[in-house]
Amino acid sequence: MRNIAVVGTHQTKFGELWDKSLRDLAVEAGLGAIKNSGLEKSQIQALYVGNMSAGRFVGQEHLGALIADNLGLKGVPATRCEAACASGSVAFRDAYFAVASGDIDAALVVGVEKMTDIHGSGVLTTLAAAGDQEWEASMGLTFAGLYALMARKHMHDFHTTREQMAQVAVTNHKNGLKNKLAQFQMAITLEDVLTSTMIADPLRLLDCSPITDGGAAVVITSEDLAKKLGGQPIYVLGTGKGTDTIALHDRKSYTELLSTKLAARRAYEQAGLRPQDIDVTEVHDCFTINEIIAMEDLGFVEKGKGGKFVEDGEIDINGSVPTNTCGGLKVCGHPVGATGVRQIAEIVQLLKGECFNPINGAEIGLNLNIGGSGATAVVNIFGKEPKV
Amino acid sequence: MRNIAVVGTHQTKFGELWDKSLRDLAVEAGLGAIKNSGLEKSQIQALYVGNMSAGRFVGQEHLGALIADNLGLKGVPATRCEAACASGSVAFRDAYFAVASGDIDAALVVGVEKMTDIHGSGVLTTLAAAGDQEWEASMGLTFAGLYALMARKHMHDFHTTREQMAQVAVTNHKNGLKNKLAQFQMAITLEDVLTSTMIADPLRLLDCSPITDGGAAVVITSEDLAKKLGGQPIYVLGTGKGTDTIALHDRKSYTELLSTKLAARRAYEQAGLRPQDIDVTEVHDCFTINEIIAMEDLGFVEKGKGGKFVEDGEIDINGSVPTNTCGGLKVCGHPVGATGVRQIAEIVQLLKGECFNPINGAEIGLNLNIGGSGATAVVNIFGKEPKV
Repeated sequence: MRNIAVVGTHQTKFGELWDKSLRDLAVEAGLGAIKNSGLEKSQIQALYVGNMSAGRFVGQEHLGALIADNLGLKGVPATRCEAACASGSVAFRDAYFAVASGDIDAALVVGVEKMTDIHGSGVLTTLAAAGDQEWEASMGLTFAGLYALMARKHMHDFHTTREQMAQVAVTNHKNGLKNKLAQFQMAITLEDVLTSTMIADPLRLLDCSPITDGGAAVVITSEDLAKKLGGQPIYVLGTGKGTDTIALHDRKSYTELLSTKLAARRAYEQAGLRPQDIDVTEVHDCFTINEIIAMEDLGFVEKGKGGKFVEDGEIDINGSVPTNTCGGLKVCGHPVGATGVRQIAEIVQLLKGECFNPINGAEIGLNLNIGGSGATAVVNIFGKEPKV
Repeated sequence: MRNIAVVGTHQTKFGELWDKSLRDLAVEAGLGAIKNSGLEKSQIQALYVGNMSAGRFVGQEHLGALIADNLGLKGVPATRCEAACASGSVAFRDAYFAVASGDIDAALVVGVEKMTDIHGSGVLTTLAAAGDQEWEASMGLTFAGLYALMARKHMHDFHTTREQMAQVAVTNHKNGLKNKLAQFQMAITLEDVLTSTMIADPLRLLDCSPITDGGAAVVITSEDLAKKLGGQPIYVLGTGKGTDTIALHDRKSYTELLSTKLAARRAYEQAGLRPQDIDVTEVHDCFTINEIIAMEDLGFVEKGKGGKFVEDGEIDINGSVPTNTCGGLKVCGHPVGATGVRQIAEIVQLLKGECFNPINGAEIGLNLNIGGSGATAVVNIFGKEPKV
């Protein structure tokens, strides 16, 4: 399989964007990434769109053709890919295979979600469609509820503390303070998290990523084309995807995700790397407990010791595994279809040294994007040098 | 790019299936195709699901992981792909690139839609989400309405007659009479079509494909693996996808689809074939006018002469281009996410000589699957011998 590089990235402002439509966000992200890549629009040979639920959020399916049309890419093959909150990463992977196969040399990946146009509790019932509709959503189990079960079991089995989970939020808010594109720019304290409104015991408001509108995009090309563009290409060294049961109650464990472990194993194998080789990560902190579980499932720390790992500052910008250094889902916001693409864009910018929080000497980055309560996970590993 | 073959197919009964859920249909189709392929379930390395709108039809997104789980394929990478009524074909293409890239050797593609569980007019508003929500659906323009505009313009510009359109339905009903998996098994006359209920002038009830539940699946592998299985692999000789503007009013022409022309050009080029080399086709007759336009855009007959082409019997089983020989969307039914995969399964079975309506000596088959009012089109060309 030939080498593939990310050559362009762009992200819109994330937030409650009342004056922007789904297509506005997709177009802004897509055109920005093409411009950033140095490619002409006519060189884009395929479009992949990551989106979870525009059909329910804004009454629009068929986003591939819609966004190709609105981007001025009429005619170009276009597909929308979906895996709940991992939609952005599965779109990235399908674009990756199209270029890797040799069928095309350049593809645009746009992740987008417009979540704030739906009325009342519609956003929660729509998000619940990422879980098992027949066995979870129909019983009233929301996503905060699902992750609360995972959090409670992690606390029970491993003595993970409320404070350790809260520390994830505190760290991510600190990281994102200067992130102008993030939904929030505010420092919070442990006390703030621990006294915020209870959402689903033990998770409180400040343990949860918000409801967000936003778009992000990346352009990928073959190594040959990337080298002609003159910039610093960031290469895909490995990519893995895994699944787990859709319903939580069917799993052997509530405290680890089989999907992440399978995706990580595959990505590490392809890249020929181990966890200790990773310089910086973006992981899926939809709820604080998930960042702790992610650190364990990615192999950065032993199962059960993720809480202590966070408490000891290992995920801090100056820690052993700088994580969510731009704020993560918690602070950037979580427009579900866009999140995976934003993560990839952040890692690419970090490795290029273009991030507001520089990670000096970072050569290898990883992103973990999770769908639903972990029924899908995608892990990608990126580096400044191509695989040989 | 290495050669890819279809090695297994299966289709569920299509119809109003009150006793089957989305997951029942997906599992029946998927397990059937794996069994038909001769592969062990453990050899399936990825799942691609074609589905337009389960989020709206049955409140369930995240179908990749859901169906992997229900198929007993837990852990296997899974993605849901969507391009409205072309969702099945875009899923097929993404599976194709994953295998062609060399990342995996075998993938399962499941197309599925459960349309009859939604209340009242919900099915029409959901289908309208395949068009432009802001400029078409929100104005009340349904899909029958969109295709009625195309039909009226075709009649105006080329003197295509009501009878010629009706002949498409008559022919497809005749072809599907013995199709036990089809939604309908009944002969109809021109008179029946011409006196059926008006839906959107000039299209009447019997010009329209129905609302349907159903699933279809195919297994694809590398050429090497296909040859080890011992059956007759059917090879993918070419595949193309194209897009057009999402809204009809933005197009230069209402009587041809840019998307089909681009997809066909690419597929013919890849296959090194011309329209006259095609022995049998499955095309997207969601409305009768669309089969006439398809014949023109695929190059079987000059633009404007499609009506006469049908009238002259050229699409009949004994005609020059046997088309929809199992009944097409009109008779099989049109579970939107399943249709593209059903078409591929039919072509494969036809080339293997396993169809109830044999096309003697057929070596090369083509399917055309269209999304929305033509904003997406996919053309695949299949043959009994691999490309050299």
